[in-house]
Amino acid sequence: MDAMSQLGATGAGKLSGGGVSGLERTALRRVLDLLGKPPVEFVLWNGEVIGAGHDEPVARVWIRKRSVLPRLLFRPDLHFGEAYSSGDVEVEGDLVKLIQYAYPMEKRGAQRRLWDRLKPKLPVAEHDSLTHARSNIHHHYDIGNDFYRLWLDQDMVYTCAYFPTPEASLEEAQRGKMDYVCRKLRLRPGETVVEAGCGWGSLARYMARHYGVTVRAYNISREQIAYAREQANREGLDGKVEFIEEDYRAITGEYDAFVSVGMLEHVGKANYAELGTVIDRSLGPRGRGLLHSIGRDQPRPLNAWIERHIFPGAYPPALMEMLEVMDAGGLSVLDVENLRPHYARTLEHWLARYEASADQVEQMFDESFVRAWRFYLASSVASFHVGALQLFQVMFSRAGLNDAPWTRDHLYGRGFSNARH
Amino acid sequence: MDAMSQLGATGAGKLSGGGVSGLERTALRRVLDLLGKPPVEFVLWNGEVIGAGHDEPVARVWIRKRSVLPRLLFRPDLHFGEAYSSGDVEVEGDLVKLIQYAYPMEKRGAQRRLWDRLKPKLPVAEHDSLTHARSNIHHHYDIGNDFYRLWLDQDMVYTCAYFPTPEASLEEAQRGKMDYVCRKLRLRPGETVVEAGCGWGSLARYMARHYGVTVRAYNISREQIAYAREQANREGLDGKVEFIEEDYRAITGEYDAFVSVGMLEHVGKANYAELGTVIDRSLGPRGRGLLHSIGRDQPRPLNAWIERHIFPGAYPPALMEMLEVMDAGGLSVLDVENLRPHYARTLEHWLARYEASADQVEQMFDESFVRAWRFYLASSVASFHVGALQLFQVMFSRAGLNDAPWTRDHLYGRGFSNARH
Repeated sequence: MDAMSQLGATGAGKLSGGGVSGLERTALRRVLDLLGKPPVEFVLWNGEVIGAGHDEPVARVWIRKRSVLPRLLFRPDLHFGEAYSSGDVEVEGDLVKLIQYAYPMEKRGAQRRLWDRLKPKLPVAEHDSLTHARSNIHHHYDIGNDFYRLWLDQDMVYTCAYFPTPEASLEEAQRGKMDYVCRKLRLRPGETVVEAGCGWGSLARYMARHYGVTVRAYNISREQIAYAREQANREGLDGKVEFIEEDYRAITGEYDAFVSVGMLEHVGKANYAELGTVIDRSLGPRGRGLLHSIGRDQPRPLNAWIERHIFPGAYPPALMEMLEVMDAGGLSVLDVENLRPHYARTLEHWLARYEASADQVEQMFDESFVRAWRFYLASSVASFHVGALQLFQVMFSRAGLNDAPWTRDHLYGRGFSNARH
Repeated sequence: MDAMSQLGATGAGKLSGGGVSGLERTALRRVLDLLGKPPVEFVLWNGEVIGAGHDEPVARVWIRKRSVLPRLLFRPDLHFGEAYSSGDVEVEGDLVKLIQYAYPMEKRGAQRRLWDRLKPKLPVAEHDSLTHARSNIHHHYDIGNDFYRLWLDQDMVYTCAYFPTPEASLEEAQRGKMDYVCRKLRLRPGETVVEAGCGWGSLARYMARHYGVTVRAYNISREQIAYAREQANREGLDGKVEFIEEDYRAITGEYDAFVSVGMLEHVGKANYAELGTVIDRSLGPRGRGLLHSIGRDQPRPLNAWIERHIFPGAYPPALMEMLEVMDAGGLSVLDVENLRPHYARTLEHWLARYEASADQVEQMFDESFVRAWRFYLASSVASFHVGALQLFQVMFSRAGLNDAPWTRDHLYGRGFSNARH
């Protein structure tokens, strides 16, 4: 028996009710107070319940192992996900709402000031070498096309969709997004497009098929590129779409349009200027482009658990950081749209499909993988819902061009598609 | 006769044809080369013509006084405007196109790198005190409502208009802009709006009249506020619109929406964070806003002549600088639109109306005033046309709100107005 336990046993720590100390109880009550007394209950390892007095809690958090509590209290951003994945913490009820209730902690002034002080001292995610980039990307995107097929839409689009209405299906909304991007880019038949970070190639194929352009698309995920090529071949798009297993830095040639959907999150702030230079050298004299990325209202590090377990090396930039790309490329920003609610909706679809396939995922991997990815998807819904994350589409062109449409009217009110067929 | 002239007389400077030296001639030819041999001719004080060999030049620049040439060559950004205002330089032909031809000088890589090196050493326009702000604003906006009435639209709107089509009239386009701003702000009857920098009050009155909101509008230009109040009274808007002769820093109260059209240019970069704080404290929990300002693709000092003679203390920020306001206010950016071509068009209308009233302006002031303001309007058309200046409308809201329309569709395709009557 160590000194602390002795103290507890003799009264100062007020151990009671099957091993819950007064300090533990007070700390959890304090958490509920800080969060504004949400309809959430903690159920402790001994069955004791600590709640904010709601009759019907939206979520019940079972803390099954006493030893995880200190970590949960001091670095919830990192350790809640870990304890949830291992099963030391179980959540009964609505996981998304639970995480949403936890967000006020991040928003509080004191916490915000703490971030601001810590920021310069935090380790910067490593992106400087292509080797790092490849291993970071491999970690997430090469875990198996079969896995992603279980819960993405049928076109395998793993980025924020664009819902004409909130009730649209995920399939409709992903095509809606691809078409919206094409309209924003003002693609015309015969033009050339370069895509940086093309995922499974759905946008590249969509542009070629529906807008008559020739596309060269880059990606360093081997599994994705293999799928993209096979699919293009099956759709008879050989010669219209070329997939290249290379980093955006390897882009060569000159194009009418540059597009990147969901890659900037993996580029790393230190490389934004270089990306701007790549765009600059890739665009013809009348070139324009679109950068689509998860972002932030203000610069903040990515959630520690996500960075460690789901997206190593990822960083969602604030809009002002994102603009460093355009600045370095000498480009002119024409239009910025924040599609945050669309990403919350997209993730709700993914989460629902994922849950429906959880048994298959467990057969492919194991239970802790199932739990980790559930937690990642649920916390992402919550992050976009409460506004901890944003989704920016930035349209740009070479400086000083005068050939853009006079208003944004052409983007709307035409059944959400300008596709030729 | 000094040493230089003696050199000239003895051949090294190659004085000829009534007093034009070889150096002067070479320098002007070099300027035309640097600009890509535009259809422009110089006519020198002795009648000698230096051109790039075009049969029909678009503009002919008469340099009437030999002594202005060195200044024109070394600081054209400052001295061309001065020499034009004084009449030492005269322009025959298209003044706007002439200035457009001169822009490649600013865009050249070497020049750009020079700016970047000079930037930290350039004096920063003074904005730190309210006294400075008042005197800067007085300089431009208090020179007489009668003067502005000669060439603005009938609603006296002195900011970028929004043209449904390029052919729309200025009156239509200014109302189009006011309505567009109201739609972007999603104004509903009974709501409250605070406006920072309200000019002659046209937007405040438009919002109150057509969208049923109550507006409190701030401005430190005495003449503008007097006009705004008189006009509101005439239109029966007392009690719906209140005009306050104060700086944005004096804003008190809580509002549903914050709007500022064409004030940020005068705020000064050092005060962006403070403006963000003012917006933050002025917005209710569901608050949203719009900031409309001249901007830049990249941070650059304002043209020296404009800053000295037309807009003391003004600074058009790069978009990334503009976002410092939102960052400091903890606000979320929803939408950014670059309306650059609309400002070029607006300025073309102003310049045409101004020219038509030049005689009246000369009666009010004098010839050099007429010339200075012509040069300011013409160079502004050119700046927006070539993309040296941008016009950004930034929509924002309190972070994490989920009540915005699902898409931007509602802004378009309804005859460009949601006004109630």
